[in-house]
Amino acid sequence: MIYLDNAATEKPNENCIKAAKKYLYDDYYNPSALYKSGYGLHLELKNARSEILSHIADDNEFSLIFTSGGTEADNQALFCGGKRGNVVTTNGEHSAVFLAVNELKQRGIEVRFANLNADGSVDVEHLLSLIDDKTSLVSVIHVNNETGAVNDIFAIAEKIKAKNKYAMVHVDGVQAYGKLKYKLTKDIDLYSISAHKIGGVKGCGALIKKKNLQIKPYIYGGGQEQGFRSGTENVFAIKCFEFAARDRYADLINSFEKARQLNKILRGALREDLFKVISSENASPYILSVAAKGVRGETILHEADDRGIIIGTGSACSSNQKKRFSRVILACGIDNQTADGVLRLSLSPTNTAEEVLKAAQELNEIVGNRKNIMA
Amino acid sequence: MIYLDNAATEKPNENCIKAAKKYLYDDYYNPSALYKSGYGLHLELKNARSEILSHIADDNEFSLIFTSGGTEADNQALFCGGKRGNVVTTNGEHSAVFLAVNELKQRGIEVRFANLNADGSVDVEHLLSLIDDKTSLVSVIHVNNETGAVNDIFAIAEKIKAKNKYAMVHVDGVQAYGKLKYKLTKDIDLYSISAHKIGGVKGCGALIKKKNLQIKPYIYGGGQEQGFRSGTENVFAIKCFEFAARDRYADLINSFEKARQLNKILRGALREDLFKVISSENASPYILSVAAKGVRGETILHEADDRGIIIGTGSACSSNQKKRFSRVILACGIDNQTADGVLRLSLSPTNTAEEVLKAAQELNEIVGNRKNIMA
Repeated sequence: MIYLDNAATEKPNENCIKAAKKYLYDDYYNPSALYKSGYGLHLELKNARSEILSHIADDNEFSLIFTSGGTEADNQALFCGGKRGNVVTTNGEHSAVFLAVNELKQRGIEVRFANLNADGSVDVEHLLSLIDDKTSLVSVIHVNNETGAVNDIFAIAEKIKAKNKYAMVHVDGVQAYGKLKYKLTKDIDLYSISAHKIGGVKGCGALIKKKNLQIKPYIYGGGQEQGFRSGTENVFAIKCFEFAARDRYADLINSFEKARQLNKILRGALREDLFKVISSENASPYILSVAAKGVRGETILHEADDRGIIIGTGSACSSNQKKRFSRVILACGIDNQTADGVLRLSLSPTNTAEEVLKAAQELNEIVGNRKNIMA
Repeated sequence: MIYLDNAATEKPNENCIKAAKKYLYDDYYNPSALYKSGYGLHLELKNARSEILSHIADDNEFSLIFTSGGTEADNQALFCGGKRGNVVTTNGEHSAVFLAVNELKQRGIEVRFANLNADGSVDVEHLLSLIDDKTSLVSVIHVNNETGAVNDIFAIAEKIKAKNKYAMVHVDGVQAYGKLKYKLTKDIDLYSISAHKIGGVKGCGALIKKKNLQIKPYIYGGGQEQGFRSGTENVFAIKCFEFAARDRYADLINSFEKARQLNKILRGALREDLFKVISSENASPYILSVAAKGVRGETILHEADDRGIIIGTGSACSSNQKKRFSRVILACGIDNQTADGVLRLSLSPTNTAEEVLKAAQELNEIVGNRKNIMA
């Protein structure tokens, strides 16, 4: 089986699970408990927070709140940040942002959407033109989860602050953390990340925030996470996240280079007469969006599945919305027919050149055969 | 080590983890994915939902939404149900309800709190007197997490509906699920449960709702959980929950009887001159609240910890709030001095008679010694 749907979820890193399983079997205490074993876990969570943060930010300037995942982190940022005036975002956001801002709209907040360029990156000039002195929050995805387009969020955030220094800047960094090399700058107020996209387990993510930024909690209760997110801490998943991030950042540059090579092989091996490449050359190498010409993506997905090749069409999360075309792909200016053939091939550092070559050959064959039947 | 803080969290059931670990190592796919392995997990989640529900409800009448835990389930119920007029609750709620309704108050909803009886159960007449035709939601805890007091939520819900049939009834059932025998009645609209209180793992719970009840999502995004709760499903934790519930319900009556025996031994063995029992005879046998006379609970907790006895003082979740006295214990009408000595001893079916007897002897000795020193 060749797994190329890593942007949906990665196979958890077995070494990390092994290292963390003592938090299931032995150190199962409640980290809020006052006895030593509870307090010990409290300290371990503190370390995990600090280490996961350290890979992308200075912990004198930022702090980290564990959440149940990237979606909750996005929701907390939007609902706790987008309280007044208008909220500006892009047409290239993950559903976790897109549907949250739609709910904000229901609540009377004006929401403004910036156009995308053809590769899925945001049209920065258009974005900036939407920001005024009533803008309370701007939310921009770091790496587009469907096309891999990388937004230069640091330059964008600086320009946002130049237009309105009070506008809060949120970035959905789920497909960037553990994959690209960067450090958060002072213009970023809130940043969402997820564990299961980098070899951690599902059910864990975090909202990183400027240390001095006061936002309301989204989940109220026992006062965990310094009061910003209540609920008994998911210690096992948090420690898996810490270990998976450590592993990923220890080899970030090599992994990136490997993904770049694999991406190049894929691009080169997919037949030009059968596939149109949507992702730009400077997209994240971990995501390659292509459109089969004249064959439905879902048809290809199922046939590839039968041949042991696991791929995606657009975002896994969008499958629940039962919409035929991806709104993000359409926002790239792609016509319905091309959008119908979109496939997302997404990589992890554990994929091999043999795998991606084999996958490309199978996809060529599937689409080629279909076209012959239809011809 | 003798672990008597099971109401804070239970040691996960190792057999359940073993049975579920394939969802970490092998079946790690995204359940929203369209390929067979993803869809297979989608079906497994459907079964898990149905089985976890089946132990306490008819699945023609109720449905189940997986959440990140009991706290999130409570928050979803309150924030999505308590939209208008007034919200009625009790002074005996877990922080997940208490601090959520306090936030509702900030948002302009009137919140009314019903008094408690001395054992921590709600004063039903007072509760009913607070309900009027503007009440949008009533939230009552099933088993009080500090004293174990059992509210007869079915009779209470019927009376609530008789006063205002449009008032939504929410019950926090976190300390009842897997411990008491009951079936949800038509008067209950929303019911919260948690996995890690019955041998599942942390980071998983559920909000059970009347099937035809339309509530808004609390976390927006990919449309998982039929649109009621977005975010990639935590398959491993959900399957652990399913297996732990199956295990617990297979032996519910025997476990209850065992807890009753252990509770009786504890009550009998703690010296009357040193401890005042707060929990009533008909409380849940899984929780025993006692107050040491003239010695601080926290002091006893630490000394017991040194002797290998793990106990709680009030709720573990309340330790983050850094308040000396439990608001629930004070609401039982207990004076500050007694409240200062409160200990919560909470049981699981895996505890033994030897353990609880030993714990009682140690606690007697700790408090006895302290009193001698002070005398």
